[in-house]
Amino acid sequence: MRCCHICKLPGRVMGIRVLRFSLVVILVLLLVAGALTALLPSVKEDKMLMLRREIKSQGKSTMDSFTLIMQTYNRTDLLLKLLNHYQAVPNLHKVIVVWNNIGEKAPDELWNSLGPHPIPVIFKQQTANRMRNRLQVFPELETSAVLMVDDDTLISTPDLVFAFSVWQQFPDQIVGFVPRKHVSTSSGIYSYGGFEMQAPGSGNGDQYSMVLIGASFFNSKYLEFFQRQPAAVHALIDDTQNCDDIAMNFIIAKHIGKTSGIFVKPVNMDNLEKETNSGYSGMWHRAEHALQRSYCINKLVNIYGSMPLKYSNIMISQFGFPYANYKRK
Amino acid sequence: MRCCHICKLPGRVMGIRVLRFSLVVILVLLLVAGALTALLPSVKEDKMLMLRREIKSQGKSTMDSFTLIMQTYNRTDLLLKLLNHYQAVPNLHKVIVVWNNIGEKAPDELWNSLGPHPIPVIFKQQTANRMRNRLQVFPELETSAVLMVDDDTLISTPDLVFAFSVWQQFPDQIVGFVPRKHVSTSSGIYSYGGFEMQAPGSGNGDQYSMVLIGASFFNSKYLEFFQRQPAAVHALIDDTQNCDDIAMNFIIAKHIGKTSGIFVKPVNMDNLEKETNSGYSGMWHRAEHALQRSYCINKLVNIYGSMPLKYSNIMISQFGFPYANYKRK
Repeated sequence: MRCCHICKLPGRVMGIRVLRFSLVVILVLLLVAGALTALLPSVKEDKMLMLRREIKSQGKSTMDSFTLIMQTYNRTDLLLKLLNHYQAVPNLHKVIVVWNNIGEKAPDELWNSLGPHPIPVIFKQQTANRMRNRLQVFPELETSAVLMVDDDTLISTPDLVFAFSVWQQFPDQIVGFVPRKHVSTSSGIYSYGGFEMQAPGSGNGDQYSMVLIGASFFNSKYLEFFQRQPAAVHALIDDTQNCDDIAMNFIIAKHIGKTSGIFVKPVNMDNLEKETNSGYSGMWHRAEHALQRSYCINKLVNIYGSMPLKYSNIMISQFGFPYANYKRK
Repeated sequence: MRCCHICKLPGRVMGIRVLRFSLVVILVLLLVAGALTALLPSVKEDKMLMLRREIKSQGKSTMDSFTLIMQTYNRTDLLLKLLNHYQAVPNLHKVIVVWNNIGEKAPDELWNSLGPHPIPVIFKQQTANRMRNRLQVFPELETSAVLMVDDDTLISTPDLVFAFSVWQQFPDQIVGFVPRKHVSTSSGIYSYGGFEMQAPGSGNGDQYSMVLIGASFFNSKYLEFFQRQPAAVHALIDDTQNCDDIAMNFIIAKHIGKTSGIFVKPVNMDNLEKETNSGYSGMWHRAEHALQRSYCINKLVNIYGSMPLKYSNIMISQFGFPYANYKRK
């Protein structure tokens, strides 16, 4: 037959062999490609995983865990008690202790002698005792989320687990437990305060325009934002040893064009400052502390050329915790 | 000249006349098209104003006001009492009463005789007493938001004002006051329930996966979505005279790929069914009501080929209302 006749020609035989070889090579390459594709990590494009970076050391997604940053000065007894609590919180990746006790060695040895510990704790010795030390871009920080807590604040684990899940749904905002507000007066001068102040506007209820970072989750990229702010902002914080949290709220509100934070009502959060033996009671006890914060608001408006803070009255609680908290009285 | 010589030819003359005529016709058509385009409602592309339509009569933005849709059957005393309350709620654009009392005339005359009223109220006489009558695309509806309320439910004005403001921040979700959930069992069969059921998964607290539409704000575009659903969905609702709200949650969850609703805890919401003189006490008192709802969930999963509902434990309250509700005990 004609086909056979063609097949028997030497040139054709060679051609068919080359063809077969090529097909085999192509098939092998496809199999290899398929295997490689199966082995690649899947990349999701939705909003939640927008800032995903690989954590080579622990293999965790950077949106699924957070880094605790705790700055401490002269209250090591509270610090260690709090670390014992926080080290066991689910989804905690690492702790960074910003050690502001200049001239005193950080308790690395003591910490290690009482191991093993669930997660790494890094003590970062500082060169000067500055409030804004905690807002550095720490190279050890690998997660998208920061949990920032003052060294006298004990937040229960259920509160943290819930607030972190809320942050994952609103990763561009500060999700935290302490709301504050600014009010403006007829003179255009701003003042800083809490619930004792009256929110502007008609309507019932209250408003807040800031969520303090000392008990909150926020996106770690905002540490870089803070570093890039005008020198005047850093100078203001250095002069007052105050207002780094107000500045962060300004920066974030300005960046996202909406309210900087979301308030999550804590079920079980305590301030332990009365329990310290150090004799040191915290910056907010200084006589000028509250006045400084109003001062800072007006300075920041001056530096940025506008008031970017926005009001919100959204309060988030965990459905069904404490039990049946949604039932009508 | 050559041109003139050509012009004078009879055929050419005819051709130029045709050309002129065509140009005129084209010009006229362009003008008409331009006029029509100018008269068409403008379509904006950003998320918040996606469904903006001009309200010629009131000149309001369609995101700034809402339409109350209230379906009623055999409880006209409750209806009129509720209308007296709801007609005065801020940001209400119009009320559409879905009159399911077939054969009985709607109380237009009575309503008008007790005017003037703050906003228009339209009584829509229905041809058959169907649960899903309230999910029609009413031509009178001009706002992006629907407030849907059962004809025995009294929701306080502060609750409505706050929940509407929350809806404006989450316009693609049902923002409402009644959370419910589905649970799955080892057999794969789903069941429907409320707080008395246990949410799946570890962790404390509860979860919800649906927000019932009978006390909620939702985007009016979802009425069109509902109309476009498979006939089997409409048939299910007609057979049970139930489950239209479950279907809406399925549709929305499927569409947005996240939880269909956000629960806002009501401060002051009451059910007035015990106050009616009509002798009629509402569909949910039927013996088979709860079982039907579990039945509906399984049928809908079957129709859609998957379970699209997602769990949430976010509970929203209004900051500072009631007074100091954010203070620790």
